[in-house]
Amino acid sequence: MNPPPVITDPLVLFMPSGKRGRFPKGTPVLDAARQLGVYVESVCGGRATCGRCQVVVQEGNFAKHKIVSSNDHLSPKGPKEERYERVRGLPDGRRLSCSSTIEGDLVIDVPQDTVINAQVVRKAALDRVIERNPAVQLCYVEVDEPDMHKPLGDLDRLKVMLEKDWGWQDLLVSQHLLSDVQAILRKGEWGVTAAIHRDLDSSRPTIIALWPGLHNEAYGIACDIGSTTIAMHLVSLLSGRIVASSGASNPQIRFGEDLMSRVSYVMMNPDGREAMTSAVRSAVNELIEKVCAEGGVSTEDILDAVFVGNPIMHHLFLGIDPTELGQAPFALAVSGAVHTWGSELGLKINHGSRVYVLPCIAGHVGADAAAATLCEGPYRQDRMMLLVDVGTNAEIVLGNRQRVVAASSPTGPAFEGAEISSGQRAAPGAIERVRIDPATLEPKFRIIGSEKWSDEEGFADDAERLGITGICGSAIIEVVAEMYLSGIISEDGVVDGAMSAVSPRILQNGRTWSYLLHDGQPRITITQNDVRAIQLAKSALYAGIKLLMEKQGVDHVDTIRFAGAFGSFIDPKYAMVLGLIPDCDLAEVKAVGNAAGQGALMALLNRGHRREIEETVRRIEKIETALEPNFQQLFVNAMALPNKVDPFPKLAEQVKLPPRKLPAPDDGTPGDNAPRRRSREERAARRDRG
Amino acid sequence: MNPPPVITDPLVLFMPSGKRGRFPKGTPVLDAARQLGVYVESVCGGRATCGRCQVVVQEGNFAKHKIVSSNDHLSPKGPKEERYERVRGLPDGRRLSCSSTIEGDLVIDVPQDTVINAQVVRKAALDRVIERNPAVQLCYVEVDEPDMHKPLGDLDRLKVMLEKDWGWQDLLVSQHLLSDVQAILRKGEWGVTAAIHRDLDSSRPTIIALWPGLHNEAYGIACDIGSTTIAMHLVSLLSGRIVASSGASNPQIRFGEDLMSRVSYVMMNPDGREAMTSAVRSAVNELIEKVCAEGGVSTEDILDAVFVGNPIMHHLFLGIDPTELGQAPFALAVSGAVHTWGSELGLKINHGSRVYVLPCIAGHVGADAAAATLCEGPYRQDRMMLLVDVGTNAEIVLGNRQRVVAASSPTGPAFEGAEISSGQRAAPGAIERVRIDPATLEPKFRIIGSEKWSDEEGFADDAERLGITGICGSAIIEVVAEMYLSGIISEDGVVDGAMSAVSPRILQNGRTWSYLLHDGQPRITITQNDVRAIQLAKSALYAGIKLLMEKQGVDHVDTIRFAGAFGSFIDPKYAMVLGLIPDCDLAEVKAVGNAAGQGALMALLNRGHRREIEETVRRIEKIETALEPNFQQLFVNAMALPNKVDPFPKLAEQVKLPPRKLPAPDDGTPGDNAPRRRSREERAARRDRG
Repeated sequence: MNPPPVITDPLVLFMPSGKRGRFPKGTPVLDAARQLGVYVESVCGGRATCGRCQVVVQEGNFAKHKIVSSNDHLSPKGPKEERYERVRGLPDGRRLSCSSTIEGDLVIDVPQDTVINAQVVRKAALDRVIERNPAVQLCYVEVDEPDMHKPLGDLDRLKVMLEKDWGWQDLLVSQHLLSDVQAILRKGEWGVTAAIHRDLDSSRPTIIALWPGLHNEAYGIACDIGSTTIAMHLVSLLSGRIVASSGASNPQIRFGEDLMSRVSYVMMNPDGREAMTSAVRSAVNELIEKVCAEGGVSTEDILDAVFVGNPIMHHLFLGIDPTELGQAPFALAVSGAVHTWGSELGLKINHGSRVYVLPCIAGHVGADAAAATLCEGPYRQDRMMLLVDVGTNAEIVLGNRQRVVAASSPTGPAFEGAEISSGQRAAPGAIERVRIDPATLEPKFRIIGSEKWSDEEGFADDAERLGITGICGSAIIEVVAEMYLSGIISEDGVVDGAMSAVSPRILQNGRTWSYLLHDGQPRITITQNDVRAIQLAKSALYAGIKLLMEKQGVDHVDTIRFAGAFGSFIDPKYAMVLGLIPDCDLAEVKAVGNAAGQGALMALLNRGHRREIEETVRRIEKIETALEPNFQQLFVNAMALPNKVDPFPKLAEQVKLPPRKLPAPDDGTPGDNAPRRRSREERAARRDRG
Repeated sequence: MNPPPVITDPLVLFMPSGKRGRFPKGTPVLDAARQLGVYVESVCGGRATCGRCQVVVQEGNFAKHKIVSSNDHLSPKGPKEERYERVRGLPDGRRLSCSSTIEGDLVIDVPQDTVINAQVVRKAALDRVIERNPAVQLCYVEVDEPDMHKPLGDLDRLKVMLEKDWGWQDLLVSQHLLSDVQAILRKGEWGVTAAIHRDLDSSRPTIIALWPGLHNEAYGIACDIGSTTIAMHLVSLLSGRIVASSGASNPQIRFGEDLMSRVSYVMMNPDGREAMTSAVRSAVNELIEKVCAEGGVSTEDILDAVFVGNPIMHHLFLGIDPTELGQAPFALAVSGAVHTWGSELGLKINHGSRVYVLPCIAGHVGADAAAATLCEGPYRQDRMMLLVDVGTNAEIVLGNRQRVVAASSPTGPAFEGAEISSGQRAAPGAIERVRIDPATLEPKFRIIGSEKWSDEEGFADDAERLGITGICGSAIIEVVAEMYLSGIISEDGVVDGAMSAVSPRILQNGRTWSYLLHDGQPRITITQNDVRAIQLAKSALYAGIKLLMEKQGVDHVDTIRFAGAFGSFIDPKYAMVLGLIPDCDLAEVKAVGNAAGQGALMALLNRGHRREIEETVRRIEKIETALEPNFQQLFVNAMALPNKVDPFPKLAEQVKLPPRKLPAPDDGTPGDNAPRRRSREERAARRDRG
């Protein structure tokens, strides 16, 4: 007898994951995907009614994979799939993976943007693909009707079917569903969709919501609660698509502009904590209403939510008194990730909705920094990455695959325009860009709301319309850097009175000098005090960064990421000229926008990312700058422009820096201003934020 | 070289569990107990401050165990134990097991009634010892102070210590504690007591409460919510001692006396369910206040609660609409055990308190029957045990180690005095005992509130004071049985008009006759209709029991347990004469009082009992009497006294029963009353309770 011919099962490759395996002919594509751990959504459990499990066959000879893939290698559409196509519509080339079986070698694309119904898409897909593995899953089941011979409760029979069809064991149930389960089962004529939440593998899965019939929509929100702004994404948990994004002011501003004044408010007002918690939760609820209206989504369909924020926002949102964060040793009430319920936080979303809050890294390095870390992933890099989020406190993370260190540094509000004589928040009419001619010392600038430089035709009209009202954070960096590049200020930051011979814009104010940027109403000048305020802020930031570099034992960083609004507006070149950040190839300095919000989104769409950042935060080494003996010296060195001791060779390749003076024997700053600065330094070093 | 001598570790036997093992000298007794799985409480974690871990050495030569036990085989009291004794007091012979080490063979008694502080004991200990393994445990820990170098949150450091000292891994935390944890830790100067809840092994343990310093009290409530009465025990979770027990009327009575009228109320009133849920929860809260006041316990120290009730009470208490239970197929919303939070049910106890509700057996066999089953344990018996709880519905469980079956039977309210012409609830002035002289047909009786029979001296004074107002459930059973034994009614239940020749107490009412029990104000008679009502009720009960006996294939039961108030007041002999229950040795018929409440207590004190009854309920075979074809015939047979076909040989040994008539060819009841009865039978059989 001849041996039977060797029959090889078809080879199937899933894209974009690249996972592959052999499966017997007749295997449904959905089953093959699941066996390989490829995430393909399905709500109806293979009944060809939800349409969530769409795939596309890539046709052709994929020589590298030794696969000749063809639509013919998939079973033809059966009656169920044809009915779905007829009733709901199926885009060209799309197939339902639950109803298509493998009949030959295949390369199968799992699209990231499967859109069901008339879901309005107003927002582009993410710029990065987040592999999906959400903590909430919709599962349609058909439950046995009650039977007097087997008097199992309605809920208990629902659980039986969720185990049988979907494999959910040991299900818990949200208390609020007990009173609804009977009516929902009967309304759905025993066909219902359950939302199952399971985040940690060690926790028991829970039925958190229930609808009659097939319910084919589930959404989540990812929210970054900043001191100034609250930013939110509304995203479909079934497709991963962002449906709407929006932002709102944090109404806590009325209790204090900066974080520490809010802590003071809590300490000084008996109901301060409640008022502040209530304010931020109301704002979050309003924002939820807004993104839902924009996306055409019911708030009842929001089943999961991820929040991040700095430690004080984190505490106030969770209803925790932040007083301890206002004084050494800056103890967080809770640093680990928080798992709770929307209803516990007063969120007006589905009553069973769950909430996940990312861990905080330290007392001044919050869940927002953790989220930004998740997003940018220094711990996934071979190269040394510096991640900076500048606010009243700068949160600094430095590291690579081997080791990550983090710290915060008390930059104060100067970068946001506070403490600057003509400073203001970014708003129409604010100066946002500045150039100074090094020969004439004449400036040109741009204001928010106009595309024109001040020396261009038509600018006067715009200025007439908008006013020229002040100078915002990004322009403060630029004007001080330009003053330095044009020789108006020395590397010690002293406005050089001798330059008044070159230009009438150099004005004397008592013992110091200032630079007249715009002679209008108001008159906009950069004073010696303004320069000092920027020097103090930037040296706090730089000293923090330098401390982390010393911890890592490196004298340069390979790549820099600026997170947050401030980073999005400043020009990396000027930031480096001023010495906010260490020397680096300018092409490697990138603004990444709201990385914290993006990180929250990742945690929302994939619970694996939650474990990833929890583990990462545990491993991150936290450096408390106030306790480091050489922080003071690094701070003093960083007062000089760009720095008293550190070279900036890469910057010098691209920008002509003024010639360097030799380091002065003492701290290198002029005596007339030293006492005042020293007291500020001490304040910064002691973190006296109260 | 000689081999080293064989050194045998000391042998330690713990009583009453009988668990034993060898331990190296120097092992603390508490550690040895834990290793053997002997439950010894400890809150302070071995610091000799809580005093919960007391044990007693039994001295003597225990030949059977080959142990010579002596107090000298325990280490002498150290300074910590001496300090505890000095400050808090230690009863004679008691030792702290955390501070005593094993130095020789020992027999150690773990007392079940360790009383700490001045805890008032108003209630005797349980009549049975419930091995303790509560779902809530108190754990004292000393938490590291915050450290800027390791900025773990306060809560996170608490978790670290709970894992280190007590082995709790993967702890969850009640949301409400997040806002309190910092203040509590500081108030306790970093020493705090956490209450940890873990019920199911598969669930993650949760910190549900937190106190500064050593908190040495934890209580639970076990509550049976009956249609008429709510009964509650308040018990120390640390000692197992019942601190107070009390009862209250179920205020839902104002919505309807019996269960089905309450279901009707819900069906007919839009806010009926809410009103009824709110009524029962308020009553439970009032009862909690009452038992706490009685026991001198703060409601804040109640951390766990177990509830049982019939299916309709179960649903209404949990906030579930009971309408489905009012109509076939009598579908429970949830039959499995319910795990929830006190706060979800509006209970005014510790905010983190947990609630466990026992499973229901079937649509008419509730969590109360499950609790009674746990208490009496037919499934633990070799012999066939019948467990009956008589109410408007009788809940019947029959079985032994091999197999347990359960059913309910619609007895109606006759046993409670409703539908009886002179019937009333048990209250002062109600007739509760009756005897009829078989020669003269003269009665004697007793009324509630008096110790005297009506033919005794002084009765008249009592009757003057109390009134003679009616006849309560237990006396109805007796008077009908006595009427049968004295020949006033036939075995068919017909009041024999011919007996009017013997006594003027036999009165004619149109076509039927009645018996004059008391000629006062009011006049108390037992009418033909009264006898019929009792016959209908008792035949429903008996037919249900008989159906279960047929399922089990037995013609007799070995032992009978009457649970509930009704069972406590009726005389088993009369119940058997009437044929409520099958023939059985009268010594084997026992009233067990509130077995449901006792079962709830067992589930409160030992979470193993929760798993035990959950597993048992899953295995119990549920019989729906309405679906059984021969229920009708069993019902008709049971109309006769004691029964048309079943012999009562054991009863006949102790009671002289009237001579038996041969079975009549038809249903054996007189024609004049048959139509009315038949319609009632049908109603009963159809369970038309609306």
